[in-house]
Amino acid sequence: MTPISPGQHILIPGAGLVGSLAGIWLSKLGFRATLLDKRSKPGTPGYDQSRSINLALSHRGWKALGEIGVHVDIGPVALPMEGRIVHDMEGRTQFQPYGRAGQAIYSVSRSNLNRVLNERASAEPGVEIHYRTRATSIDIERHQVFAETPEGQRTYHGDAILSCDGAFSAMRQAFQTSDRFDFSQDYIAHGYQEFHMEPTATGDWAMDPNGLHIWPRKSFMMIALPNPDKSFTCTLFLGWEGSEDSFAALKDAGYARMWLQDNFPDFCARVPDFAEQARKNVVSSLVTIRCFPWYKQRSLLLGDAAHAIVPFYGQGMNAGFEDVDILMHMLPKAKTWEGLFMDFAKARKPDTDAIADLALANFVEMRDKVADPLFLFQKKIDARLAALLPERWVPLYTMVSFTSTPYSEAWARGREQERLIRRIMDLPGVEERYLQDDWLLDALSRVEFGMVVTR
Amino acid sequence: MTPISPGQHILIPGAGLVGSLAGIWLSKLGFRATLLDKRSKPGTPGYDQSRSINLALSHRGWKALGEIGVHVDIGPVALPMEGRIVHDMEGRTQFQPYGRAGQAIYSVSRSNLNRVLNERASAEPGVEIHYRTRATSIDIERHQVFAETPEGQRTYHGDAILSCDGAFSAMRQAFQTSDRFDFSQDYIAHGYQEFHMEPTATGDWAMDPNGLHIWPRKSFMMIALPNPDKSFTCTLFLGWEGSEDSFAALKDAGYARMWLQDNFPDFCARVPDFAEQARKNVVSSLVTIRCFPWYKQRSLLLGDAAHAIVPFYGQGMNAGFEDVDILMHMLPKAKTWEGLFMDFAKARKPDTDAIADLALANFVEMRDKVADPLFLFQKKIDARLAALLPERWVPLYTMVSFTSTPYSEAWARGREQERLIRRIMDLPGVEERYLQDDWLLDALSRVEFGMVVTR
Repeated sequence: MTPISPGQHILIPGAGLVGSLAGIWLSKLGFRATLLDKRSKPGTPGYDQSRSINLALSHRGWKALGEIGVHVDIGPVALPMEGRIVHDMEGRTQFQPYGRAGQAIYSVSRSNLNRVLNERASAEPGVEIHYRTRATSIDIERHQVFAETPEGQRTYHGDAILSCDGAFSAMRQAFQTSDRFDFSQDYIAHGYQEFHMEPTATGDWAMDPNGLHIWPRKSFMMIALPNPDKSFTCTLFLGWEGSEDSFAALKDAGYARMWLQDNFPDFCARVPDFAEQARKNVVSSLVTIRCFPWYKQRSLLLGDAAHAIVPFYGQGMNAGFEDVDILMHMLPKAKTWEGLFMDFAKARKPDTDAIADLALANFVEMRDKVADPLFLFQKKIDARLAALLPERWVPLYTMVSFTSTPYSEAWARGREQERLIRRIMDLPGVEERYLQDDWLLDALSRVEFGMVVTR
Repeated sequence: MTPISPGQHILIPGAGLVGSLAGIWLSKLGFRATLLDKRSKPGTPGYDQSRSINLALSHRGWKALGEIGVHVDIGPVALPMEGRIVHDMEGRTQFQPYGRAGQAIYSVSRSNLNRVLNERASAEPGVEIHYRTRATSIDIERHQVFAETPEGQRTYHGDAILSCDGAFSAMRQAFQTSDRFDFSQDYIAHGYQEFHMEPTATGDWAMDPNGLHIWPRKSFMMIALPNPDKSFTCTLFLGWEGSEDSFAALKDAGYARMWLQDNFPDFCARVPDFAEQARKNVVSSLVTIRCFPWYKQRSLLLGDAAHAIVPFYGQGMNAGFEDVDILMHMLPKAKTWEGLFMDFAKARKPDTDAIADLALANFVEMRDKVADPLFLFQKKIDARLAALLPERWVPLYTMVSFTSTPYSEAWARGREQERLIRRIMDLPGVEERYLQDDWLLDALSRVEFGMVVTR
């Protein structure tokens, strides 16, 4: 067991969002950190921006950034989205708020955020970032990381190692080939393809920028998030296989043009080169990665390296930032790295499992249920109860996106609340009466105690 | 797509049980096969026998071996076990038959079986085995296998590749890092440790050799299988962690001696050096591996490389042999390697998933239920119905071990039969009346059609 003491040197393979945040925080706590990243320095030639362009930053992410003062750099370039803007087949839209007025998730550019975090990290006295340095493997026993650098192979030594090298973590290989490491990677049957929607000819937004646009089409969907340059990044989520409604079918350019126009007419009207983009833009896969234990001796997996999830709850980055937040709050009280890493991982694992499941479930909600009148009625009762009982009734989406309620607790409470709402929806006259506060509160206590008069 | 034609050359990384069987069968079908194995040739210096000493060969395995005539070599060294011999805390035993009289599973030595299959493969005109040749990686696009040989690195080319290199398959790595490959490895909370029970001083068996011995102790168990030299291989299955009843606790030699004597007194009486063996013998882990797709272009994963399971149903080797049996029966009718591998894998996957689940469930049955009077009563009704309705009622264990019923079908039928027996067990007077054939058949038709008179 290795006692923790300030001044110790922490290796961080991966200077992405999570790794950079961890490095900054460690420096503020008096440690030294060396970040290793295969990419070039942001802003220099060769800097790779290939990964998806925008992400949804919500409460957990803001909280973590705020704890070390980084939020002030992000605020100006983050675009608030206060709800879903649902597009039907005729191009009509309907606004569905995410929470109360003022509660929003924020569209941020990954490359912007990464650049800001890299700059902040570089400015810390305790942090060094080594770019163009690909961490290839780890010796857990000797707490060493092996890397390919522009000057050749190099071995890094650290007092502890935080592996933040993403869903396809090279560091995790050493865990995976060690004994008794549970691991799974599960791909969903859908892939995704990004489209770019330019501003209008007059330089304005092509659509309302104050929401997350969704074209729900049951088995597939399109979404769009606004960018600071008044463009939108649109993403089509669609099955890989099948003779129609699939990326396989869309390989036929003629079919693709017709299919996109049939299903997303108002999107196509705003993206003149949609057919060309469909032909050129890459289609990528979506994976959930679970594993355990995340810790071995003085090494820890963090963020996507430990728990990559599908993007449908907008929580991948937020969960990674919250990892760092929780870990760094435990660090000052911890005695040894081994003990810290074990305690952190065991406490955190049920929550990242919960958000992985929630993210998978939310895909069905986004692509199908948001257009279902019964589901919308359920959401109305949910919102009404939240307004009447703000202390005890918090909708699931609100708990996940606008509070720090542990994901597993949010999910358990959300399931219980949904069960109660479903029973209220069975009461006679609910359609007319749910807006009467007394009736709704009385209905709630009746279904809670099982005293339900069914129709 | 690559047309199949006789004379083509198939690479088989892994000359273990499954790889050797596949090589022999391919040769008999007119193909050439090159087997690559990291081990030394059986019988030469350096040949490694470290893996577990005996396995249970049952119907599916015998059938596959029989199809190419190898069963005649195995028969003389296979020891029939007609049932479980359950040891209680006082060392008293109870015999529980596996099926009808004459139905047995067979204790065979892994090294014996491997040697016989290697010899048979070497004798085939179309087969070459390259020993001390560790296949390290695969180029799926170019259908090449890279290997370390005593003469250095070598690249092998084949028209198709069957990877039979076991649970920790190096070939599978190339699948795993390709896109959209689902994979999981799940360790159970128990490990295992082998003990050797010598023949008695007079050279006789220390216990009855006609059964599989079990010491069920609820959360843990010991088992023993006979060997041809009149010794037994005994295996302790026990949790890794915990302050008592765990391998962690058994690290204290004094505690281990006391604990083994307390829980397995009649075992300890027959193994004088049990405490020394507990201290010296290695403890190993138990894993379930699932993945899909098993096929990529002209490469296929087979046996444990595709679906490693825990040993509690005695089906790991049998399932691997059945893989080969099914594949080789599909091969003569198939047009392309790509099509064959896809069709085989899609058809086979539900069955290997089923046996993986059955093997996990059978651990609970072996270590706990076999000592439960209610469970034993359930088994009696099961056996009675099987005797009365031999055409339509086949107990689950019988379907799995003594027939070729697809595992998934066996499991579905087994669950339905168990549901019916449970309902019969709720009928008044069942304890006395189940031996009256008319009553039992009438009870079955009543529970089947929901016409149950409850007590």
